[in-house]
Amino acid sequence: MTSPLDAETVRIWGEQYSNWGRWGPDDERGALNFITPGRILAACALPRAGKVISCALNFDHRGPQDGRGGRHNPIHTMIADGGDALAGAQDFLAGGFRYADDTVTMPLQCGTQWDALSHVFYDGLMYNGRDMKLVTSRGAQANSIDKIKDGVVGRGVLLDLPRYRGVDWLEDGTAILPEELDACAEANGVAVESGDIVLVRTGMMTRCLAEKSWAGYCGGPAPGLSIHCAHWLYEREVAAVATDTWGLEVTPNETPDCFQPLHMISLRNTGVLFGEIFHLDALADDCAADGNHAFLFTAPPLPITGAVGSPINPLAIK
Amino acid sequence: MTSPLDAETVRIWGEQYSNWGRWGPDDERGALNFITPGRILAACALPRAGKVISCALNFDHRGPQDGRGGRHNPIHTMIADGGDALAGAQDFLAGGFRYADDTVTMPLQCGTQWDALSHVFYDGLMYNGRDMKLVTSRGAQANSIDKIKDGVVGRGVLLDLPRYRGVDWLEDGTAILPEELDACAEANGVAVESGDIVLVRTGMMTRCLAEKSWAGYCGGPAPGLSIHCAHWLYEREVAAVATDTWGLEVTPNETPDCFQPLHMISLRNTGVLFGEIFHLDALADDCAADGNHAFLFTAPPLPITGAVGSPINPLAIK
Amino acid sequence: MTSPLDAETVRIWGEQYSNWGRWGPDDERGALNFITPGRILAACALPRAGKVISCALNFDHRGPQDGRGGRHNPIHTMIADGGDALAGAQDFLAGGFRYADDTVTMPLQCGTQWDALSHVFYDGLMYNGRDMKLVTSRGAQANSIDKIKDGVVGRGVLLDLPRYRGVDWLEDGTAILPEELDACAEANGVAVESGDIVLVRTGMMTRCLAEKSWAGYCGGPAPGLSIHCAHWLYEREVAAVATDTWGLEVTPNETPDCFQPLHMISLRNTGVLFGEIFHLDALADDCAADGNHAFLFTAPPLPITGAVGSPINPLAIK
Amino acid sequence: MTSPLDAETVRIWGEQYSNWGRWGPDDERGALNFITPGRILAACALPRAGKVISCALNFDHRGPQDGRGGRHNPIHTMIADGGDALAGAQDFLAGGFRYADDTVTMPLQCGTQWDALSHVFYDGLMYNGRDMKLVTSRGAQANSIDKIKDGVVGRGVLLDLPRYRGVDWLEDGTAILPEELDACAEANGVAVESGDIVLVRTGMMTRCLAEKSWAGYCGGPAPGLSIHCAHWLYEREVAAVATDTWGLEVTPNETPDCFQPLHMISLRNTGVLFGEIFHLDALADDCAADGNHAFLFTAPPLPITGAVGSPINPLAIK
Repeated sequence: MTSPLDAETVRIWGEQYSNWGRWGPDDERGALNFITPGRILAACALPRAGKVISCALNFDHRGPQDGRGGRHNPIHTMIADGGDALAGAQDFLAGGFRYADDTVTMPLQCGTQWDALSHVFYDGLMYNGRDMKLVTSRGAQANSIDKIKDGVVGRGVLLDLPRYRGVDWLEDGTAILPEELDACAEANGVAVESGDIVLVRTGMMTRCLAEKSWAGYCGGPAPGLSIHCAHWLYEREVAAVATDTWGLEVTPNETPDCFQPLHMISLRNTGVLFGEIFHLDALADDCAADGNHAFLFTAPPLPITGAVGSPINPLAIK
Repeated sequence: MTSPLDAETVRIWGEQYSNWGRWGPDDERGALNFITPGRILAACALPRAGKVISCALNFDHRGPQDGRGGRHNPIHTMIADGGDALAGAQDFLAGGFRYADDTVTMPLQCGTQWDALSHVFYDGLMYNGRDMKLVTSRGAQANSIDKIKDGVVGRGVLLDLPRYRGVDWLEDGTAILPEELDACAEANGVAVESGDIVLVRTGMMTRCLAEKSWAGYCGGPAPGLSIHCAHWLYEREVAAVATDTWGLEVTPNETPDCFQPLHMISLRNTGVLFGEIFHLDALADDCAADGNHAFLFTAPPLPITGAVGSPINPLAIK
Repeated sequence: MTSPLDAETVRIWGEQYSNWGRWGPDDERGALNFITPGRILAACALPRAGKVISCALNFDHRGPQDGRGGRHNPIHTMIADGGDALAGAQDFLAGGFRYADDTVTMPLQCGTQWDALSHVFYDGLMYNGRDMKLVTSRGAQANSIDKIKDGVVGRGVLLDLPRYRGVDWLEDGTAILPEELDACAEANGVAVESGDIVLVRTGMMTRCLAEKSWAGYCGGPAPGLSIHCAHWLYEREVAAVATDTWGLEVTPNETPDCFQPLHMISLRNTGVLFGEIFHLDALADDCAADGNHAFLFTAPPLPITGAVGSPINPLAIK
Repeated sequence: MTSPLDAETVRIWGEQYSNWGRWGPDDERGALNFITPGRILAACALPRAGKVISCALNFDHRGPQDGRGGRHNPIHTMIADGGDALAGAQDFLAGGFRYADDTVTMPLQCGTQWDALSHVFYDGLMYNGRDMKLVTSRGAQANSIDKIKDGVVGRGVLLDLPRYRGVDWLEDGTAILPEELDACAEANGVAVESGDIVLVRTGMMTRCLAEKSWAGYCGGPAPGLSIHCAHWLYEREVAAVATDTWGLEVTPNETPDCFQPLHMISLRNTGVLFGEIFHLDALADDCAADGNHAFLFTAPPLPITGAVGSPINPLAIK
């Protein structure tokens, strides 16, 4: 018989799986510290094909956002273009040089992205015991995304759950347990190790793209990691974990009285970097084709000073 | 005796150093095509230290932009923060989960960035003979930055001109000639090869940061590549070239009647990816320390659909 | 028997109802010139109740825009707030002074607004024969909204069509003919005169608000002015006309081969200012109550240099 | 002998000149309540010339903002323009209809503007005793600018201090005392009355425009109202007060330990609407010419839901 899962569970597991202080009181990199130089070199030795596969969804007005939480899709506007050149508006430039230029307005977590370690709080604190008061309209004074600008590079491991189960995608509400993560990895001849960046494909994005509808994608019921993965992420010393869903965790959450409990435990206490809205289909097809589910992985965040997240273009190098 | 350099030179050299059609009429990747699978694998074999060094300047209001051409520094605003949590504005969320979220408004070329192959035109055409009419307020329908989302990964080579010359930084107006690029490379035990990503440090950013002033950085006199590098970039089959300056080229330009002639030849005709506002000091220090000026380099653009450039966080992996 | 209405009709009527040159070749105010000092003074003499009624829909994320044409609803973000004060982020200010500050990103025509005379073109020209080449990424060099910053003040006349017909709102696709405008005015004891600002209520916004849905509001079928009003607007010397709909004109348009024909004739040739997305319900109720459908009306645009439209807060002073 | 002016003075005077509760516990309009229907009708009777004069500075990149407090000048971008039409990007529209459209990103207080009654706090409270916790990243839940959308209309009175003193502009640091406001009014044959909107010209903007430099305009030393005007604003029942400066008050402030003390007293406690960055030169010239310093005045804010300020185009109707 198990206890009910609730906010109290989150607090207890948060304490148990905490890395606060593990890399000193000033640490702002969290579990990325598991990616040692040796791990980086080992990851660089993985590629066999010399192939690069992006795990980003294009950033544009067709993205998944519906306004929830003030997040809209990227707004891309031109500040100079070919039409200007045609209209003679660039004739101030010497010679025939003409150009285009553009700008974007985008919530930093509107598409494929990393959550910074300043993205979530609990009981007034964020990763490594820092006060949430450090995050105001002027940005995050600690744990911000620019603190990990010399990252993210390491070994990536794809866990393709739908293929493992033999389905097109997991049903909404499916909780992925650590046992299945291990079994899926084993089936693909790989084991999750310290410092790995784990990419979990649920197929939810595959379905949305197939159905040409993002309805329910943002914040609705979704397949995702169970709160029971908290122990696994901690014990395996996973550096970063990402999915093809909006919020990484199974929704509805398993804790009726706590929203996104895995964020609370694994991001806030364990210091694991969370990635969301990854587009994993091309990578999944490639891994299925060559049977190789581990690769060199690089996904550098834009070092926007004080930001609590960043859009990214994650690359798998195989 | 040499002919004067002018817009006519640009047209002639553009024809001579053109890669239009080389990879087919539909190609939108340009010289990135030189980065073959073999080159990628060779680049992955370079790291010896397992170290990652970012070449990005942080993106914030202290950036170099002064409004020229409508480019401003990034505007970072919070749409949820710790103050909200304190004020009770997040109490609609179950349990103790509290969070921060943010947004950015930024010109895509306001900081460390890639120019897309749709960034410049001449005589109505851009790379691979495509009409500049394809670039309007709705974005670029060809040669946009999202077309190279499976990049940029390859061998990076740092050419640290100030160190080579024994100065802190090159003076404004210094034209860097291809002979000096070769000599600098040779002095560091490396030779530029097909598919390389060449990072040329002029020290201009070092000076601006030391002087705590960006005055003149954007569009003013600057050290940079001479138009004579056009042949070198073509012949060496350079995939991408980047500097620590605003515009990569020496300013004032060597062609009185044509602005940014190297862009016109090498970006538009040769299809070389141009990078600007790279922060190369940390990398330069590291290369000087270990004597190793070639490394695995990755700088994925954000695949903003139809964009003519992208902010990036370039990583050197040594 | 009448000829079919088509793009050719638009060209012919455009010539017939043209005010190009009427106020000189440099004029950028169009039909606002009909609002003479005498008309302004007469309008100021209208108020009897000392009451002010706004005709603006609030600007926020609940607005009507659905992304069509790149128009989104206003994005309002705080750059300083009470939460910051609580968190101590404003303690750099002497004494107890604390403050809030904010910013908006909004398409200028996303809500209650004026179209500038540079908003539409035909055959390469806009109002007063100016070339559309004058409108580029750098804004409109002629006929821009800031050219009418000393406006809009005059007599407003409400024509409340649903009340006149005894219905809650006009059905989508209902074309409003000039005869009905006159009849409606007469029924309310008022006649449209030179320099008037005519507010035509269709009830479409009433319906959307009642149904809590903007579906179809932007660009879908809608009640609105018939192309036959072109002559009436010209002859009556109407200064400005506005409705509670997205596009003022009946949709589907009466000209199968020309989108928004009344804009083409009356805005471009006649120089009438067009207002859209006006919220006329409170004003309509008040006019019905006191029987007075003419009032002092003021709706100053924000003088954004080079803009082709402006959000406004139109006020009826009764 | 007088006591020193300090934060304690602010608290005491704030209590003395408080209008909290005067119009009920739910009031969010403050001193605008002094503009009774009778006052509005009286104001409408003022115009003699039928002339409209804007008091707005154009909103564009040449504005006064320098980034202080995160405020930048307006960013105006086109999302459709004549160049697009030339390039064929609008050919999806039936017939010859072509158009331009645009968007703006602007801090709401970057130019000519009203402060909302939620703009400032003291001891945790804003106007009418409301908690500053009501102002978070989601906007102001009370005292926001949209609560006064049926305004601002009333009698405007210009107090042209430089002309009164016979100088081009007041020197920076000049404190304007209530006695001088009265004397200036009297010299111009007008007396400030209940419900008036008082426009105080210091000439600072005149100087900046003449010198083509905004250096020091935002937050630097400036002429402006003395804290001693707090009693005058309260007693005279002024509805709104505005100047041609950044911050309305004399700077450096007269209270060394409290920033912007008049905001704290008169905006927060008395509930007077504050206007800033008004462009009063054309109006001043006109008043000097006809000797008439009172006029109908209208300056409707954009009703942006939850906003703590609004850009405006104030109109004097004479």
